[in-house]
Amino acid sequence: MYPKTFASLVDSLSRLGGVGLKTAERYAFEIIEWKQAQIDELSSVLEHIASDIQYCSKCGNLAEGELCDICLDGARDQHTICVVQSAKDIVAMEKTQEYRGVYHVLHGVISTSKGILPEDIQIASLLPRVDEHCKEVILATNPTIEGETTAMYLSKLLNKSGVSITRIAHGLPMGGHLDYADELTLIKAMEGRKKM
Amino acid sequence: MYPKTFASLVDSLSRLGGVGLKTAERYAFEIIEWKQAQIDELSSVLEHIASDIQYCSKCGNLAEGELCDICLDGARDQHTICVVQSAKDIVAMEKTQEYRGVYHVLHGVISTSKGILPEDIQIASLLPRVDEHCKEVILATNPTIEGETTAMYLSKLLNKSGVSITRIAHGLPMGGHLDYADELTLIKAMEGRKKM
Repeated sequence: MYPKTFASLVDSLSRLGGVGLKTAERYAFEIIEWKQAQIDELSSVLEHIASDIQYCSKCGNLAEGELCDICLDGARDQHTICVVQSAKDIVAMEKTQEYRGVYHVLHGVISTSKGILPEDIQIASLLPRVDEHCKEVILATNPTIEGETTAMYLSKLLNKSGVSITRIAHGLPMGGHLDYADELTLIKAMEGRKKM
Repeated sequence: MYPKTFASLVDSLSRLGGVGLKTAERYAFEIIEWKQAQIDELSSVLEHIASDIQYCSKCGNLAEGELCDICLDGARDQHTICVVQSAKDIVAMEKTQEYRGVYHVLHGVISTSKGILPEDIQIASLLPRVDEHCKEVILATNPTIEGETTAMYLSKLLNKSGVSITRIAHGLPMGGHLDYADELTLIKAMEGRKKM
């Protein structure tokens, strides 16, 4: 029903997660109304993704060259490693402007239901980084079943190294309300209570 | 913070309506995980938008050539014209497979608040189509203030032509519940009641 080019555009856009046919159509109708320069920009960016965007060979973060900006930054503590599920999490963490160590991106989590095994995610590349100079490994996978499983697995694996292994705290989110929190969060919040 | 190419990708995607920075980032992270062929496909589609997608010179629908498929379709009643706001609406209408006439896309609606005047939308090109052969003009702009205003304007303008001018019905959507309907819809539903 649509012209072929338009249909392919809708098709491509509906590949995005959470984007159904309806939304893809809406996006496509918007894009064809864009200025030619804007369309060209997106098209050319897409063309250069493969050559311009790589993953840092050390930590797995997005990088323009061999290493990412964080690994190249001499001012950062290269011996404190925060382990995250995806490069997206680094962005979230960096926005806090609090953490001054480096990262390690697992690019996934162990998931028995999805058949993702420890060897399918970037664990092998983490091990040599946890050496005698390493001060702390912070496990910052998501507080989900898979994230917890992965954190558990890593803590067991890394404990022999003698390096301090920590897990980010679970509890009530700031600004959250007790009566909106789910049971598990409340349990974690109680478990993690601190003296005031 | 992001590699430059990635940042431009996020930038481009956040131009889409309803897509904030967070969603654009999520889309961008997904796209860089696409297979190269899929990325190339989207990139090349974008490259060809300007040359491949045009608006039908007769009705304003999306078209691959001078005229759209509907205007070219000899089996359709070329003397019944359904007037819609955007090409998107044609798709919705065509899905019903009920309507066998043709369309006219206004590419907008009259909006005093946005400063969109009758001459800013495709009304001039509609007038010559409403000639002595024309049987009916169905005004199918959205039941919003702007859509109603535009329908009203068109009906006044076209009434002198002697052609039958109709407006699509307003009322409760099928499967809708009375208690969820807004006041205006209920009023319209009552006004439009029919003998059973």
